Amino acid sequence: MNRRMILYILAKMMGVEGVLLLLPAFVGLLYGEKSGACFLFPATILALIYIIFGIRKPNKTKIYAKEGMIIVASAWILWSMFGAIPFTLGGYIPNYLDAFFETVSGFTTTGSTILNDIESLSHCMHFWRCFTHWIGGMGVLVFVLVLTSLDKKNTMYLMRAEVPGPEKDKLVPKAMATARILYGMYFALTAVEIVLLLFGGMSPFDSIIHAFSTAGTGGFSNYANSIGQLDSAYIDGVITVFMILFGINFNLFYLLLLRQFKPVWKNEELRTYLAIIATAIALITWNITSIYGNPLKAFRYAAFQVASIITTTGFSTADYMKWPTMSQTIIIILMIIGACASSTGGGIKVSRFLIVVKSIKKELKQMVHPKSVNLIRINGKKMNPDIVQNVFVYLVAYAGIAGLSVLLVSIDDFDFATNFGSVMGTLNNIGPGLGVSGPAGNFAQFSPFSKLVFCMDMLIGRLEIFPFLMLFTSISWRKKF
Amino acid sequence: MNRRMILYILAKMMGVEGVLLLLPAFVGLLYGEKSGACFLFPATILALIYIIFGIRKPNKTKIYAKEGMIIVASAWILWSMFGAIPFTLGGYIPNYLDAFFETVSGFTTTGSTILNDIESLSHCMHFWRCFTHWIGGMGVLVFVLVLTSLDKKNTMYLMRAEVPGPEKDKLVPKAMATARILYGMYFALTAVEIVLLLFGGMSPFDSIIHAFSTAGTGGFSNYANSIGQLDSAYIDGVITVFMILFGINFNLFYLLLLRQFKPVWKNEELRTYLAIIATAIALITWNITSIYGNPLKAFRYAAFQVASIITTTGFSTADYMKWPTMSQTIIIILMIIGACASSTGGGIKVSRFLIVVKSIKKELKQMVHPKSVNLIRINGKKMNPDIVQNVFVYLVAYAGIAGLSVLLVSIDDFDFATNFGSVMGTLNNIGPGLGVSGPAGNFAQFSPFSKLVFCMDMLIGRLEIFPFLMLFTSISWRKKF
Repeated sequence: MNRRMILYILAKMMGVEGVLLLLPAFVGLLYGEKSGACFLFPATILALIYIIFGIRKPNKTKIYAKEGMIIVASAWILWSMFGAIPFTLGGYIPNYLDAFFETVSGFTTTGSTILNDIESLSHCMHFWRCFTHWIGGMGVLVFVLVLTSLDKKNTMYLMRAEVPGPEKDKLVPKAMATARILYGMYFALTAVEIVLLLFGGMSPFDSIIHAFSTAGTGGFSNYANSIGQLDSAYIDGVITVFMILFGINFNLFYLLLLRQFKPVWKNEELRTYLAIIATAIALITWNITSIYGNPLKAFRYAAFQVASIITTTGFSTADYMKWPTMSQTIIIILMIIGACASSTGGGIKVSRFLIVVKSIKKELKQMVHPKSVNLIRINGKKMNPDIVQNVFVYLVAYAGIAGLSVLLVSIDDFDFATNFGSVMGTLNNIGPGLGVSGPAGNFAQFSPFSKLVFCMDMLIGRLEIFPFLMLFTSISWRKKF
Repeated sequence: MNRRMILYILAKMMGVEGVLLLLPAFVGLLYGEKSGACFLFPATILALIYIIFGIRKPNKTKIYAKEGMIIVASAWILWSMFGAIPFTLGGYIPNYLDAFFETVSGFTTTGSTILNDIESLSHCMHFWRCFTHWIGGMGVLVFVLVLTSLDKKNTMYLMRAEVPGPEKDKLVPKAMATARILYGMYFALTAVEIVLLLFGGMSPFDSIIHAFSTAGTGGFSNYANSIGQLDSAYIDGVITVFMILFGINFNLFYLLLLRQFKPVWKNEELRTYLAIIATAIALITWNITSIYGNPLKAFRYAAFQVASIITTTGFSTADYMKWPTMSQTIIIILMIIGACASSTGGGIKVSRFLIVVKSIKKELKQMVHPKSVNLIRINGKKMNPDIVQNVFVYLVAYAGIAGLSVLLVSIDDFDFATNFGSVMGTLNNIGPGLGVSGPAGNFAQFSPFSKLVFCMDMLIGRLEIFPFLMLFTSISWRKKF
């Protein structure tokens, strides 16, 4: 293992976070808030780390898949550890573990909070909270890759560990050039949303931070009632549409940019994603019309909540815990499904479900004709059996981690629905859970031990399990392969 | 598709059920109960079906895997349809759908009930209810195979569809001869349990029907409070031990009979199964000692409930809904794990979990060294990758069916925990669920539609998904492969 190179890359990444921390400090200056100074302390430490370890390149620069995973997993933990410092320094979140939870929730675009009084934060703290969503949405590593430069081969292993979805090899040849284009589009879409929100009468500050939260499919807001606070059908509509957009595979926007409409139109994951959204909205609208009096209003709330949950954003304009059980069940199923691969959304991803459904069909055919060879096709292309196998291992590991987490947090003796919902909310990077941690509650009441479990779940969910298993599996450290 | 042969085999099986129905009729005669006559009506119809379709062998006798699955799935449905008639005829369960539910629950060894007043049944009805568990435990088809005779090749496809567990090919070469030996041991173990229960002061009738329920890992009892009614540490102990025994792979008992101790001792599934039981009992005992006052009493209740749930029997001596959340969570995890392959127990089976854990380890190794070939070994033998793939497809299909079922029954608007628990209780063939359907409740309040969904879940769970998917997938009927 090339430890020197791991340190070098990590130090480079720390330097970038140091620079990013200057932005909320600047916001603090604009609003004349003293708390803006809290960002300068971690920024200084990060700059020192960069100067000591991140400037001189090691002689041996080659890294492999294992190092890639360990770097990515460590980077997310370190970014969260330093990003949490201003909240504690400013006295807004006195307990450092709580601040760490909030920052992990930010970078992983989860949106779960331990804050009982969200609205008490200063502007610069709100800005940093939502800015972590925006950075985390595209991946902290991709962000760094855009700003710095690394060998092409090394880049490949890093991106593989961070970009969500089953088929990662697609991205590899394009790597950095693509990363810049993707970030460009991400930036442009965020800008368009800010403008549209301003048109709806939202203040500039609110527009910016809510656009950050939408783009990263995060869910933090500066209002305790989330988007429901504004009670505007126009703003609900804009955010609904943008949540759905940010849940789409970003490579498809790239294709649109190249005027390649046919592969986008024929994309099976996109079609399935939109079909699931349409079906869920229709069923819930039908199910809740009696509550809201008319179908149009029911549609507005159904569409917003469905978009918020399937994209794992976690904004809310209605408390779905008060809806009939059928609507709640649909919401829980959407929580697990998640958005498209290579989007900023979390969850298991629609493409994995496509692969699964096709595998089951294949298995049935093979039972009838054991000698037939049936390959699975997605978008007309044959899937590599290794990827299919990996999807299944992923899903089962996912279920195992969920089960273990529910068991671990059960020590706090909350009810089962709360424990199950909180694990789902964090592991799928959604934000709110059920019961105590539902849309009307938060994670403040859990014990420090449970909060750590949730932090792990958020990171495991965002990095799709394997980098974390790698970091914590003894084989990575003890044995030399 | 050889429809004539399907009809012939099904008619033979119907004839066997006709004969079996004479047994409860005889019990009715012994106790001088008029309701015993109710068994004669379906018995007569079944005899007629046998005479018309089941005596003359078709010219073409060859069947394949698809036919095997369709026969098995149809046989279970038909047995339940005819087995339900006496309950309705006797007026004990006036609604035929409810009677069907109760009989499906019996044959699939689930033990869920729609009866509000269990103790009102006559002796012959109680006997039939528990006898269905005993028959279903080893599989209705295996039962028929023992009594009748079929071509060896045809037998193979039938057993494959019915015997639980991932590796079915093992049984194939032995097939019928083994089936007879297995049933012999099943019979012997049941007899030993009856004798031991008699020693504990249980009445002969109670001893017989509770031994039937234990052997089939079913869970029906003639007491509303289940085994808790008797409040005897000795009886709790005997039933705990026998539940654990009936959850073990029957092939291992066969090996013991052949005095091959080493492969039994080294069997990984058995070791894991016993380790899970020991760990769960230890954790729950520690967690509930404060409730029961002393660790010995806590151990007694923990051991009984753990054995009952992991083997998917569903007897109870304590209401686990009143235990702390951690113990409840362990119970829910045990529900899903289930017993060993080729036992009478339900659930996902310990061996599938073994394969899954080893696959995840393999996947991690392969990420580090993409070119390394790591085969999974169970009991020192290499696993066929097709079986491994099948296990994963099975698990994910299982989760999909569970999710769909929870969604379908949510129309009744019970709370989510009730819906989730009821699906788990039926799909895993356990019996009690959570909330409304918990150990202190039953399934009577659900709508007819939901009851049908639960019936499907019980059958799908018992036959491990694929035969049922085959029966209902259009490809089986429309296309000729």
